[in-house]
Amino acid sequence: MNKMKNNCYGICFFISVAINILLCIGIYLYIGGARRRDMKQEISWQSSLALTWTEKAAAEAEAVAAASCSGHGRAFVDRLTSDGQPVCECFNCYSGSDCSVNSLECAAVVTSGDLTFLEPFWIQNAANTAVVISGWHRMSYNYAHGTKMLTELENCIRKLHSIARNAVTEGRYMVFGVGSAQLLSAAVYALSSGNSSSPSNVLASIPFYWLFRDQTSFFSSKYFEFEGNTNSLQSKNSTNNQDVIEFVTSPNNPDGELKKPVFGGKAIYDQVFYWPHFTPIPEPSDQDIMIFSLSKLTGHAGSRFGWAIIKDRDVYEKMLLYISMSDVGISQDTQLRALKILETTIDEDGKPFFEFAYTKMTERWDRLTSAFSKSTRFSLQNRHPFHCNYFNETRLPTPAFAWVKCEREEDNDCRAVLEAGKIISLSGSRLSATDRYTRVSLTVRQDDFELLMMRFTNLISLENGSLQTM
Amino acid sequence: MNKMKNNCYGICFFISVAINILLCIGIYLYIGGARRRDMKQEISWQSSLALTWTEKAAAEAEAVAAASCSGHGRAFVDRLTSDGQPVCECFNCYSGSDCSVNSLECAAVVTSGDLTFLEPFWIQNAANTAVVISGWHRMSYNYAHGTKMLTELENCIRKLHSIARNAVTEGRYMVFGVGSAQLLSAAVYALSSGNSSSPSNVLASIPFYWLFRDQTSFFSSKYFEFEGNTNSLQSKNSTNNQDVIEFVTSPNNPDGELKKPVFGGKAIYDQVFYWPHFTPIPEPSDQDIMIFSLSKLTGHAGSRFGWAIIKDRDVYEKMLLYISMSDVGISQDTQLRALKILETTIDEDGKPFFEFAYTKMTERWDRLTSAFSKSTRFSLQNRHPFHCNYFNETRLPTPAFAWVKCEREEDNDCRAVLEAGKIISLSGSRLSATDRYTRVSLTVRQDDFELLMMRFTNLISLENGSLQTM
Repeated sequence: MNKMKNNCYGICFFISVAINILLCIGIYLYIGGARRRDMKQEISWQSSLALTWTEKAAAEAEAVAAASCSGHGRAFVDRLTSDGQPVCECFNCYSGSDCSVNSLECAAVVTSGDLTFLEPFWIQNAANTAVVISGWHRMSYNYAHGTKMLTELENCIRKLHSIARNAVTEGRYMVFGVGSAQLLSAAVYALSSGNSSSPSNVLASIPFYWLFRDQTSFFSSKYFEFEGNTNSLQSKNSTNNQDVIEFVTSPNNPDGELKKPVFGGKAIYDQVFYWPHFTPIPEPSDQDIMIFSLSKLTGHAGSRFGWAIIKDRDVYEKMLLYISMSDVGISQDTQLRALKILETTIDEDGKPFFEFAYTKMTERWDRLTSAFSKSTRFSLQNRHPFHCNYFNETRLPTPAFAWVKCEREEDNDCRAVLEAGKIISLSGSRLSATDRYTRVSLTVRQDDFELLMMRFTNLISLENGSLQTM
Repeated sequence: MNKMKNNCYGICFFISVAINILLCIGIYLYIGGARRRDMKQEISWQSSLALTWTEKAAAEAEAVAAASCSGHGRAFVDRLTSDGQPVCECFNCYSGSDCSVNSLECAAVVTSGDLTFLEPFWIQNAANTAVVISGWHRMSYNYAHGTKMLTELENCIRKLHSIARNAVTEGRYMVFGVGSAQLLSAAVYALSSGNSSSPSNVLASIPFYWLFRDQTSFFSSKYFEFEGNTNSLQSKNSTNNQDVIEFVTSPNNPDGELKKPVFGGKAIYDQVFYWPHFTPIPEPSDQDIMIFSLSKLTGHAGSRFGWAIIKDRDVYEKMLLYISMSDVGISQDTQLRALKILETTIDEDGKPFFEFAYTKMTERWDRLTSAFSKSTRFSLQNRHPFHCNYFNETRLPTPAFAWVKCEREEDNDCRAVLEAGKIISLSGSRLSATDRYTRVSLTVRQDDFELLMMRFTNLISLENGSLQTM
């Protein structure tokens, strides 16, 4: 019995020791494996986080973008509190540090040319349109080969026009400027007579963008002067002896119509709105000087980037010289940003971008037209459908602005009439037309458009009430 | 005996089982703890890698920056191959897809105003100077409150001047421009007579930066014209009836001397070089119009950013109007980048930055002076020490350019003499001086400076040989 008990204890003891040994081996292997896993994870961390010097800036950008501002504001990386926190910049009608305070009776402000209705598209495409600029990016005055224009950007723009089918670029020269504004001035210099005793007369057809007159007059050159509107020169009947430079805005600001020159001479085509979101594209524009901008294509007005497509070499060289004399070339930071934005714009033949933009503009025009159909007091510009080569269909124009006319005789200050209805718009006289017209921007944020529609609907609904109500 | 053996086995068995149990408890605790560690690490990973939409751009920027280009080139994010690979842009004297091919007999090119000698500082400060710009950054024409100038940037610049002690900004206005170039033109417009029958005469003292003449002549206004150099008007002895606007460059381009106006009237001070790396700072400049640029402070010439500090409100408003008429404000992308760069510049009272830059310039001038001390054929501009309020010591100027004079009578085209010695410099006549002088840029990359010194040393060593050698 004792011997059996002995054997039992002995065997159990040895089994227990064997288990201990196995446990120890197991522990050794496990811990060793865990260490290797940790090390591998460390390396993997390092390499996947191969983000070193960019990480701080990237994290800051994401933290700023994550600031919700109650959905009624935006924070940006160039404005932080002293302890590095985002600062909410509130949209129209909102206030407070988190933009949560709504001022219910505020006016719809629709004077600006901003295209903030496109902001959601860029937010959706955040990953493809983010740009990281290093502290040593492009410090030199010139790119390689001594140029001041980024070749990749020029190529991208040519591709863009080919996709949008809105301009001939083959065999044409290109010049970049600080917005289309600078290029308008460059074009006037390039086309001007060079004869101070017979300066060129610069003209535009009413209604026209005020910068044509203000800018041309401001530069007060010996070689050109702003004559006025095309009607006045026609009525003078004296074009034969005068050198004429005509601004042709097509589609026009503010009414969105495609325009042709009045005179057969030198013309500068401001085509910043000639894109599928604002107008059908019947044909690629084929003019001597065609000016476009990022502001009215993608909405990046703050970047100040425009381009001109030019037929004549002499004109091209003069415009290049203008840019050089003005400011020794344009910002290479801006050119990088424009490249990133435009690369996404032309993705998938531009379909995601142009469809987004056109759909929004169509919705807005449909709603506006519907509201105005109930009005006899106010009217919109006429729109007639025609064929669009980009969308390959017959469609209505969807201009950036509503060119609202006050039809009642006593309403000769249309801006004031709308202001009384809490809509702040831009007087017709700012565009050299009468104040019976006023310009309303339709390219605002969705919230601002909703407010605009609410105010218009209200104004129009009051029409059947007495005049005294206004 | 058996009973003792029994007891022994029994005790050993129970001890062994106890060890089993302890091991098992230990394993349980360890593994559990490891899991919790893993989970914590997972969360920590997630939150530290809270990089989502910026990650692609950040990774791309880092991959591009990591392209070594054999140490003789640089890659940038705006130039990639079609499959997204960095493209090496080679420095002077190097070529090949990886910039490894050295052309041993190449010339030192020292014509440009680039400050690429500062690039290593920005690379060292990569994390603090990287900027991430989102696809929806600042789309509007204006900042909040309708301005086109970033307040944070203006404040940073005022702090910069306070730290560098080089300009009075208290109670002064500020205007941003596309480089100092645009502001020079804006200042001429703002100061001009407004009387087309008596246009202002614009002047500068020889030697002067060619843009003064070229730009002023180009804009051909009715209200001003480039008269020439200050000597010519003095000798005409007819300033009493004429409206004069004088460009005063201080320190001067090319010789680096601090200058005063010749006439007592309206003056535009181009002070782009008035920083501790180029000159002692005896006092804060206190002029009516003082113009500075990022190009000549931090080296970011490609960004095209300058600022003017203005005493008079009327002049300020005219200069603002000029910028507005020219291009409706300057790029907000550039303003963000300038802010990031300048925030690092003013870190620790500017000491890391200014000491880096000044040390480099001092080394270069010491070596140049030493080499030229062996020459009778070539001379440098004189430099006299005076007190610097920033470094709080008496020191020599360390100008951006060497203003080299060829002393031999037959060497009346100094640029050609240097070119024969494989140094490409800028003729004195480009700065309205004689061609007995030539301008040599000392702000080039270190490799380029080494090559320059090698070429100069060689040229100077040949002086004791015959003239025929040249």
